[in-house]
Amino acid sequence: MDVWRTALVHADDADIRVRGYAIAALMQNASFAETVFLLHRGQRPRPEERRLLDAILTAVADHGAGAPSCAAARLVASGNRQSLSAAIAAGVLAIGDAHGGAGQQCMELISEGLELAVQEGRALADVASQLVERAKMTGTRLPGFGHRVHTIDPRVSVLFTMATEGGIAGDGISLVRLIEAEAHTRIKPLPLNIDGALAAVLHDLGFSPLAGHLLFVVGRVAGLTAEIAEEYARERPMRIRIPVTYDGEPPRALETT
Amino acid sequence: MDVWRTALVHADDADIRVRGYAIAALMQNASFAETVFLLHRGQRPRPEERRLLDAILTAVADHGAGAPSCAAARLVASGNRQSLSAAIAAGVLAIGDAHGGAGQQCMELISEGLELAVQEGRALADVASQLVERAKMTGTRLPGFGHRVHTIDPRVSVLFTMATEGGIAGDGISLVRLIEAEAHTRIKPLPLNIDGALAAVLHDLGFSPLAGHLLFVVGRVAGLTAEIAEEYARERPMRIRIPVTYDGEPPRALETT
Amino acid sequence: MDVWRTALVHADDADIRVRGYAIAALMQNASFAETVFLLHRGQRPRPEERRLLDAILTAVADHGAGAPSCAAARLVASGNRQSLSAAIAAGVLAIGDAHGGAGQQCMELISEGLELAVQEGRALADVASQLVERAKMTGTRLPGFGHRVHTIDPRVSVLFTMATEGGIAGDGISLVRLIEAEAHTRIKPLPLNIDGALAAVLHDLGFSPLAGHLLFVVGRVAGLTAEIAEEYARERPMRIRIPVTYDGEPPRALETT
Amino acid sequence: MDVWRTALVHADDADIRVRGYAIAALMQNASFAETVFLLHRGQRPRPEERRLLDAILTAVADHGAGAPSCAAARLVASGNRQSLSAAIAAGVLAIGDAHGGAGQQCMELISEGLELAVQEGRALADVASQLVERAKMTGTRLPGFGHRVHTIDPRVSVLFTMATEGGIAGDGISLVRLIEAEAHTRIKPLPLNIDGALAAVLHDLGFSPLAGHLLFVVGRVAGLTAEIAEEYARERPMRIRIPVTYDGEPPRALETT
Repeated sequence: MDVWRTALVHADDADIRVRGYAIAALMQNASFAETVFLLHRGQRPRPEERRLLDAILTAVADHGAGAPSCAAARLVASGNRQSLSAAIAAGVLAIGDAHGGAGQQCMELISEGLELAVQEGRALADVASQLVERAKMTGTRLPGFGHRVHTIDPRVSVLFTMATEGGIAGDGISLVRLIEAEAHTRIKPLPLNIDGALAAVLHDLGFSPLAGHLLFVVGRVAGLTAEIAEEYARERPMRIRIPVTYDGEPPRALETT
Repeated sequence: MDVWRTALVHADDADIRVRGYAIAALMQNASFAETVFLLHRGQRPRPEERRLLDAILTAVADHGAGAPSCAAARLVASGNRQSLSAAIAAGVLAIGDAHGGAGQQCMELISEGLELAVQEGRALADVASQLVERAKMTGTRLPGFGHRVHTIDPRVSVLFTMATEGGIAGDGISLVRLIEAEAHTRIKPLPLNIDGALAAVLHDLGFSPLAGHLLFVVGRVAGLTAEIAEEYARERPMRIRIPVTYDGEPPRALETT
Repeated sequence: MDVWRTALVHADDADIRVRGYAIAALMQNASFAETVFLLHRGQRPRPEERRLLDAILTAVADHGAGAPSCAAARLVASGNRQSLSAAIAAGVLAIGDAHGGAGQQCMELISEGLELAVQEGRALADVASQLVERAKMTGTRLPGFGHRVHTIDPRVSVLFTMATEGGIAGDGISLVRLIEAEAHTRIKPLPLNIDGALAAVLHDLGFSPLAGHLLFVVGRVAGLTAEIAEEYARERPMRIRIPVTYDGEPPRALETT
Repeated sequence: MDVWRTALVHADDADIRVRGYAIAALMQNASFAETVFLLHRGQRPRPEERRLLDAILTAVADHGAGAPSCAAARLVASGNRQSLSAAIAAGVLAIGDAHGGAGQQCMELISEGLELAVQEGRALADVASQLVERAKMTGTRLPGFGHRVHTIDPRVSVLFTMATEGGIAGDGISLVRLIEAEAHTRIKPLPLNIDGALAAVLHDLGFSPLAGHLLFVVGRVAGLTAEIAEEYARERPMRIRIPVTYDGEPPRALETT
């Protein structure tokens, strides 16, 4: 087989180095959020960057046992107690376009919008207006806006305030706030949700769109593992019963030939 | 369906509370490792506890692209670029008894040993000797001891030093060091590896054995996501070719009836 | 990397051979159940063996949308429409010791019982009695006996009748029927369920215990894929809401230091 | 929770009915491929339809241990022997756009092409020419055409011959053959592969595009389970070593603050 290339980690008999740093030094000096930043970006975060990443990972760690990711993890923990990994993996698999995936989509929208602004020398407000108009015309959702549970997502302003105070707030945050205002005028109130806020902050921190999905998962796995531990501790196997109604073909005989 | 019970997170229109704490307060004040501790243990860690958890999560975040978990994530990223979650989940699924699962098994061994010591009023050294003798007689592996890559795992002494300096080192660490010494005498040099060190420290921090597996996954997902991001950035789909040799039945004709 | 060895399939530029047979010949002459048998056993089934495997795979293909495997697949299909594979995989992951896994466990019980009978020259009824007594004393479940939904599982007698008529019924079926009778006398009515019937028939067909789990999954994936197709066709993303009640810590303030 | 609706399976104390048919009748009379067809299509196949589905499922059951799906399953089986389901799921997760996913994409291409032909009253050859030209201009791959291993995929002509002899061959097969010819002229030789053949036949059998992915997985799980059984039987845990070369940052010191 071809040898695989990597610039992330080198492990040999004597040491493990993450992006060049000895594992012992990292363990003694870096928080886990710093390690996440280092692995993904190749450099250590400044303290205010590290605090923002801590806040993002904490923000998405859990949203209640009924969230699709948490519920899928519990269902698998209910049917299969042979493997904790199986339950965690099922929770991760529930994270996609409709649940936790809007962060990546919103980062792609931000990238597209800012590219437009630069290439055509247009104001962000103008670009925001165009993006909202397009979503309205094509009937597509604006990823990162609106929430099923929260009228105002309490996590958004915390993140943006921290980003502003840390001197990190940039065009990403500006653009999503402008889109939010435009959507309010042209469509309906669609307040930013955590996916949109996370997207804007990760953009302003210099992450690429994939990180919108990947870092959501890093944070959510904290919650998934706690949900699974609670399921094991408090509930019996096979305790989950989903009520189902059948509305298909009535009983019929099988003709044999 | 029966209503599901949970003591972890409550989300309603106005707020999200993790173990009773408002999400905004946690985002502003708690690091991600604190949130992990809070979700799993129901209380906030003391600073020295938090630092140890940071060190554990950092220690296991990645061990190179060839580790089974990282390799499985990359293989899936190579065949399926429709879903980042699919690649992460595959990496998680590779974590089990033979890879990353020894932490849980070692925590169970520690629990068994300490229970023996308490119930029968025996010294830890005596218990360690018995556990090693049993492993020798039955030909079973001591989980958390020995490593394929490292003669001396550089992460072990860092964790134990931090635990000692933080006043957290307790019977868990004592017992695994005694087992290591006994194994050296009775079987062969089997130095503690990161799974065994993590197990002893998590035990002394008050975690239950399941955490040995679950927190390994929390840490490793940081690395899995970085491996996948690198695979997407540097490699083309379907780039991975595994060399295979066939040693089964030679070509044969199918008799039709 | 070391070259991997396999005796299953050889593919080169000109052909694909499964256990030595050209893929074209198999496609023209073998049913899918035959291919499953051939892959797992290395030889083609006799017609009555093939019919039994068809019956087993059909028996476990689906048991309603509320079965943990089907429900997990639908939950993931509800949150993540980026990947059909993610939903199928989640359904597979719900299959374990408590759901669909009893087949493997029952096959191990059968193997243990028949070994006892041979080694100690005892009658099967005697062995059955001992196995039931042990389960009673240790308070462990007899895998493959009893069902949450069915008083009498309608699939059991069909399989056993087919096995008997096909001349395949052997010690596996005899032993589980004896265990069923003993359990009825010594514990309570615990009629054989599909897992126990599948285990006995697969044993008498010459499969090893792992097949009890693996072939259940082969059959169930037929149902999982149909459940997912129905979820996509009839339901909107994020339609599933699990009702949750929070019974943990009341709201509390975060002390900052 | 809302009650879930399904038209697939109804299970109560006395019976299990699949699309209205009693499970006992199906077990006695239907092959597994018939059950797959019935679950997905809501009606039983005619014999020639059943034979085609058998051929499709057999065709994709396995393509050697090095295929991404098989290799991912083996990697997980190597690291995690706690859960057979985990290894199967990892294999399923490797199936996506770049591996096994072209069937669905090709079915969407066929649907688009045939819709164009009907709506605009154009000949299939004309439509094929347009689709190939578009792929050439935009530099996109034609899904279902070309193969890394086979110059001529031996499975294609078998399927098409069976479809023709069974009176099932229709516009799907016609269109992909025309696309193949156009691509040969306008781009380069891109012979149909099994994904494209499977797509055309499933279309002519009346399946919707999702089935291109879902039924590939049904077939492949036969191979995945056999690969995993072989890995357990022939290989030790953790036997797989991927050779990795590190080309990132050289060792560097961590500045502490």
